[in-house]
Amino acid sequence: MNIMIAGGAGFIGSHLIDALLDKGHNVTCVDNFLLGSKENIAHLKNNPLFTLYKQDICDFKGMHSIFKKESIDYVFHLAANSDIQAGSRDPFIDLNNTFLTTFNLLECMRQFNIKRLFFSSTSAVYGEQEGQLSESAAALEPVSYYGAGKLAAEAFISAYSARNNIETLIFRFPNVVGPRLTHGVIYDFIKKLQHNPTQLEILGNGKQTKPYMYINDLINGIMQFMDVPTGVTLYNIGVNTRTNVTSIADMVCQAMNLENVKYEFTGGRGGWPGDVPEFKYNLSKIHSAGWKAEHTSDEAVARTARELCVQ
Amino acid sequence: MNIMIAGGAGFIGSHLIDALLDKGHNVTCVDNFLLGSKENIAHLKNNPLFTLYKQDICDFKGMHSIFKKESIDYVFHLAANSDIQAGSRDPFIDLNNTFLTTFNLLECMRQFNIKRLFFSSTSAVYGEQEGQLSESAAALEPVSYYGAGKLAAEAFISAYSARNNIETLIFRFPNVVGPRLTHGVIYDFIKKLQHNPTQLEILGNGKQTKPYMYINDLINGIMQFMDVPTGVTLYNIGVNTRTNVTSIADMVCQAMNLENVKYEFTGGRGGWPGDVPEFKYNLSKIHSAGWKAEHTSDEAVARTARELCVQ
Repeated sequence: MNIMIAGGAGFIGSHLIDALLDKGHNVTCVDNFLLGSKENIAHLKNNPLFTLYKQDICDFKGMHSIFKKESIDYVFHLAANSDIQAGSRDPFIDLNNTFLTTFNLLECMRQFNIKRLFFSSTSAVYGEQEGQLSESAAALEPVSYYGAGKLAAEAFISAYSARNNIETLIFRFPNVVGPRLTHGVIYDFIKKLQHNPTQLEILGNGKQTKPYMYINDLINGIMQFMDVPTGVTLYNIGVNTRTNVTSIADMVCQAMNLENVKYEFTGGRGGWPGDVPEFKYNLSKIHSAGWKAEHTSDEAVARTARELCVQ
Repeated sequence: MNIMIAGGAGFIGSHLIDALLDKGHNVTCVDNFLLGSKENIAHLKNNPLFTLYKQDICDFKGMHSIFKKESIDYVFHLAANSDIQAGSRDPFIDLNNTFLTTFNLLECMRQFNIKRLFFSSTSAVYGEQEGQLSESAAALEPVSYYGAGKLAAEAFISAYSARNNIETLIFRFPNVVGPRLTHGVIYDFIKKLQHNPTQLEILGNGKQTKPYMYINDLINGIMQFMDVPTGVTLYNIGVNTRTNVTSIADMVCQAMNLENVKYEFTGGRGGWPGDVPEFKYNLSKIHSAGWKAEHTSDEAVARTARELCVQ
């Protein structure tokens, strides 16, 4: 198949490209290199199945001309503002990079009659809620502009899929970690400790507790479910285990062989405005469909910390 | 209070202005007169409590300068693409007029520290579903770009309200009818019969069955619930009774004193692509809160048909 990966130079997008090239697909990568990096795809430079466009997906005309040139069968949409803290200061970031990227891709798909879509959604669409989050029973009340942008994207995906017979797979991601990570708590801790290995500022009270999923588990899930019927097929994807932020600090210190690091907590339940300090997925839908993560949340964090330290 | 009505020259907005002026509020009406009309607000011209801006709400800078000039306490957002059939042909219409109007108002509210919002949502956010639609239990799977635009708007309202302590009331409207109606099935039938009183084209198979709500009932509901706590308070609003499209044709013919009109059905379950041919609200939440419509669906349709014919 001819596959477009929007946001293909990013952390998750670049791993997905590797997996799709492995299967023999042609891959067209579109990225504005705002959060994605050339290093993530440097190893693909001479691969004849790989084509790269430096292009902002918010620019409809630019995207239209790429779709006109390439004959795309399947769009994997991994482009978004993944820097949630930045988006919390300026709502236009998620309006454009998280939501409008999606609208532009959908509209190009409609105009060029493309019938297959994968969309990377997020636990943030649920907002802050008690109990397990299940796809069918939990309310959708985002508290971050990032979560709002993703839910708004899901809304248009629903209408476009219904109206144009598009076969759409949506995964709502938890925190995903692994090599090539460019943001998030593990990445931040390593950067801070490289700068000053004696103390570590921890945002919030350190008790924020979330599921962390290893990148390979996510990619395996996408590859397993990428053929879906017409309409939207939606799954929470993740792990049942969770890791708190102070434990992550411990694991990062261990990976860096640092001892007696002094932790300084900024305090408060959430790490930043719009942070959801604690959530737990109900994963029975995807487990029943025959997929399960291989790594626990702690294993995902520890392995990522080790891998990032040797990068 | 100083109140802004976005879309104030439209069908519902203009009725709401009348009710708010009656209570002694200052009203700033913003409308681009794309679907709204000068006639709807002509009677307010010399009212000292009333100010009018001709302004497209999609234009953020233009809106920003109005908010800068006026000191607004409460925003009622009634602006949208209410011509759902037009939106079904061009998704950009609902992207801009239904969704981006909402984002721009929210962002102005954030920048000018405005803490009160009313938003007109729609049954179309649910999509096409079996059984009664309740606020907490029904899935949100819009099949029209209009429903997608409204659900995307709700998503950003959720995040903005949570992050900025905004007191937000959302009503999900059914079909609303009454004087000043500018679109929809009753309006269309009257126009068609004025053009040719011997036959009437009916979109779909005529069995589409929906609740129709009289405008005064809606306005009473908005006035009753307009004080809400911080965060989003959301209700379905409507009537438990429903009317099918062929009955509407009968009532319009009766109001126009026409007999033996030949009905010609275009066929199919829905009237247009993205039409939800049948739905039923669960209204227990708003009924428990102490509000109930005075008019049944049939009464709303018959009264509107009579009133539009004498306009």
